[in-house]
Amino acid sequence: MSTSPAPASASPVTVLGLGAMGTALATAFLTNGHPTTVWNRTAARADALLPLGAVRAEDVAEAVEASELVITCLLDYASVHEVLDPVAGRLKGRTLVNLTNGTPAQARETAAWAAGHGITYLDGGIMAVPPGIGTEQAFVLYSGPREAFDAHLPVLERLGAAHFAGVDAGLAALLDIALLSGMYGMFAGVFHALALVGTEEVPAEEFAPMLSGWIGAMATGIPHYARQIGSREYADGVVSNVAMQSAAFGNLMQAAEDQGLSPELIAPMQSLMARRVAGGHGHEDVTGIVELLRKQA
Amino acid sequence: MSTSPAPASASPVTVLGLGAMGTALATAFLTNGHPTTVWNRTAARADALLPLGAVRAEDVAEAVEASELVITCLLDYASVHEVLDPVAGRLKGRTLVNLTNGTPAQARETAAWAAGHGITYLDGGIMAVPPGIGTEQAFVLYSGPREAFDAHLPVLERLGAAHFAGVDAGLAALLDIALLSGMYGMFAGVFHALALVGTEEVPAEEFAPMLSGWIGAMATGIPHYARQIGSREYADGVVSNVAMQSAAFGNLMQAAEDQGLSPELIAPMQSLMARRVAGGHGHEDVTGIVELLRKQA
Repeated sequence: MSTSPAPASASPVTVLGLGAMGTALATAFLTNGHPTTVWNRTAARADALLPLGAVRAEDVAEAVEASELVITCLLDYASVHEVLDPVAGRLKGRTLVNLTNGTPAQARETAAWAAGHGITYLDGGIMAVPPGIGTEQAFVLYSGPREAFDAHLPVLERLGAAHFAGVDAGLAALLDIALLSGMYGMFAGVFHALALVGTEEVPAEEFAPMLSGWIGAMATGIPHYARQIGSREYADGVVSNVAMQSAAFGNLMQAAEDQGLSPELIAPMQSLMARRVAGGHGHEDVTGIVELLRKQA
Repeated sequence: MSTSPAPASASPVTVLGLGAMGTALATAFLTNGHPTTVWNRTAARADALLPLGAVRAEDVAEAVEASELVITCLLDYASVHEVLDPVAGRLKGRTLVNLTNGTPAQARETAAWAAGHGITYLDGGIMAVPPGIGTEQAFVLYSGPREAFDAHLPVLERLGAAHFAGVDAGLAALLDIALLSGMYGMFAGVFHALALVGTEEVPAEEFAPMLSGWIGAMATGIPHYARQIGSREYADGVVSNVAMQSAAFGNLMQAAEDQGLSPELIAPMQSLMARRVAGGHGHEDVTGIVELLRKQA
């Protein structure tokens, strides 16, 4: 977190929603010298922020009117509408940056709602846990009008690196969810791997550095896979085709069963590879399984 | 691949099985100056190795008798027995390093067979694709008698970094399969993520560096997860508990559905998190889902 003195001109911000993440966001603004107005349905959640200089608004209307830049970080999009619909008129002409977790469809619906009320709308996806906010580890994705993003960039960067995902309001949520999906896939594999070695006298702590290094090395292939999936061409430069990988995958399933471990976390990959081979694509790379995920394919 | 001149004392090696991997192994020995005898059921597979100096054995017996160190890289363990059972007597007193893909149970069974015939047995797992053999990217896991590993280490290191996994012959296969399971989990998440952004006008190639960086950053948590899973203690230092993660995971499933993508690659994680929460462990970390994989748990 920056400890440099804030410029006298640090612009005011309003934060609606003081869960763990909203509190972290408000803290990052306050410690960087931004006059910060906060509101939460349960008002006591603001108590910890008052010593940092936060102004507690009496109600949402007062909070919204305190700053040109209003940031929401609520439980879900239903809460966003519940909180903001009654004050839509007061948001007119202001910039709303909604960092609530949601889907691309929800982001687009809210962008349309905002447009209908003359509200400038940026949707965002936070790629950090609350303790990471304001550190070098955090980054936040934003989508919506580029000029609004540029105008507020110095404020937004208080939270972490700011990435502009596109003018379509749904894109920040799309990339956010894609990154999280990738992470959970990696976790699924890693947890399975750690459970597997845990069935024998292999200390998980000793195996962990080997696993970390291996995952990192294999992740260097991501740009290659991205080109294949982006072009939907899966037959070029194949080192080990999906027929070979599918056959070898049987050992992974069998070993889990032998060790008394349910293979459910890795099983979908086996099923998809087998279907891809059965479909006549055994000579192609394993990336071709994504064709089976596409419902209009 | 090392280009330094081989010592005059480079010891002889026999390689049985000349698929893509076996050919890569033999090539690494030959280019490092080891007298290398090769055998393959389809003898013509040795043709490409003859200009490098390989000696083609007429039959398995001749191949086995040519070297004190015999390396097998065959289709599966059934092939290993089919090829070696008739020459078990000739293998007596020699060291057999079996690099065929298999399970821990298969490795242990073969170690017992070898012990019954007076054969020194190391089982191995190759963590590389054939083009990586002999490069800095490759590493190979070995398990079995430590003294046999140490004695042949200078030869084995021609293939890539050599890791001793333990005296239990099944451990190399266990770690091999665990690493591959982790990799396939990561691939599952990454392929899903790339397919997801591919449903919109986001070029997969532009998204790839962000995804690589994110996976790498999230992989730094592996030692922490290893400690939790190794100790079976999931409640300490939880930043975002499994109840919160389970609730947020709904957006990942919904977004996939909205974008016309089957969520099957990420769905098992949702199911396991929901069951873990329902089991009263919602306050713990997500790693606790491994308890649901253990069949005797």
